[in-house]
Amino acid sequence: MRMDFLTLFPDMFPGVLCSSMLKQAEEKKAVSYHVHNIRDFSENKHKKTDDYPYGGGAGMVLTPQPVFDAASFAKAQNETSDARIILLCPQGKPFNQNAAEELAQEQHLVFVCGHYEGYDERIREHLITDEFSIGDFVLTGGELGSMVIADSVTRLLPGVLGNRESAKEDSFSNGLLEHPHYTRPADFRGWKVPEVLLSGHHENIAAWRREQSLQRTKQRRPDLLD
Amino acid sequence: MRMDFLTLFPDMFPGVLCSSMLKQAEEKKAVSYHVHNIRDFSENKHKKTDDYPYGGGAGMVLTPQPVFDAASFAKAQNETSDARIILLCPQGKPFNQNAAEELAQEQHLVFVCGHYEGYDERIREHLITDEFSIGDFVLTGGELGSMVIADSVTRLLPGVLGNRESAKEDSFSNGLLEHPHYTRPADFRGWKVPEVLLSGHHENIAAWRREQSLQRTKQRRPDLLD
Repeated sequence: MRMDFLTLFPDMFPGVLCSSMLKQAEEKKAVSYHVHNIRDFSENKHKKTDDYPYGGGAGMVLTPQPVFDAASFAKAQNETSDARIILLCPQGKPFNQNAAEELAQEQHLVFVCGHYEGYDERIREHLITDEFSIGDFVLTGGELGSMVIADSVTRLLPGVLGNRESAKEDSFSNGLLEHPHYTRPADFRGWKVPEVLLSGHHENIAAWRREQSLQRTKQRRPDLLD
Repeated sequence: MRMDFLTLFPDMFPGVLCSSMLKQAEEKKAVSYHVHNIRDFSENKHKKTDDYPYGGGAGMVLTPQPVFDAASFAKAQNETSDARIILLCPQGKPFNQNAAEELAQEQHLVFVCGHYEGYDERIREHLITDEFSIGDFVLTGGELGSMVIADSVTRLLPGVLGNRESAKEDSFSNGLLEHPHYTRPADFRGWKVPEVLLSGHHENIAAWRREQSLQRTKQRRPDLLD
């Protein structure tokens, strides 16, 4: 899979894309990440990318031209498949694990990271194929949201997770929250690991974990059980 | 406000914390960010921070000692107020704008970023004061979630947003999605800006925006109107 990020703040990306699982996924050639500065595509002689909103109001608005041209450039890098052009915005469809699984089937994702007060509506109407929101909170730009989606999608790509980290037992992938984990020491500051986990009795351990998982979901996220 | 991030991947942070609004907020001394490598606090001679799970299973589990010690160190940096010790995890309370507003009242936030398959349950039971999930999707670690919370909280701190970007008109802060924005050119590739925004008639513009905001919320996020 190829992922392109269109942003006014390209420096936000390398620290995240070059660490941990995302780095390993790129090394394994399961994915390649490409970050583009929208400003580089501005036809304005001062490389301006924003302008005042029609109708007045606070804040600046991202102009359409550099965003359309940056997206065209990104799309042209992979002509064998249609790219999904994803806008991160509070008005978008709430992003969840099902959406991650769906996007993981694609060959090419292009993320448009809005910034400033907003972006020209024609970007949404005529360029974007998908709008996602990662949650009901306000962020300064779409950069963090696009990295969140990149992380959740990348870890679902074939060959990315080994046995060491299994995607299957994670919270949400079976509709329940995960059971608690414990590791050494068995006694830390007087706080002990539950006896059953030290018993070596595999069936009892599996039963305890299922029960904990169910209880925790009931208590914390009953909506997931509906 | 002071924010501390406890992580095994400190390199993920500077690109985000030193860009855009977060950088400006730190320059204005509204907030200070401090990233700590949990590994530096390990008493293990190989600086190990994870171990096998009791009871078996795939993946490694973050051990309690280095996390407790890193958190103690962070807390000691600001003794004038009790720190909120925040764990990013899928089992946490869904993070939203109300939670951001509540956290923005605090003096000190310490983020514990889990990684690997999980973290020892005693961290949750005896160290953490708040557990948050940024959404119903699986991420590789808590780092991106902690940056998302840092962004949404920082922009609410006094003096961070000027008139240029107003927090008040953003989506969610009034319970509605935002109205569309348009900027120059008035005609881009044949796609025109709505007439009313070019009219200069302030009341009509305000009415159009309210109507758009309401319609969009009805259509895309009826749950917000409940």
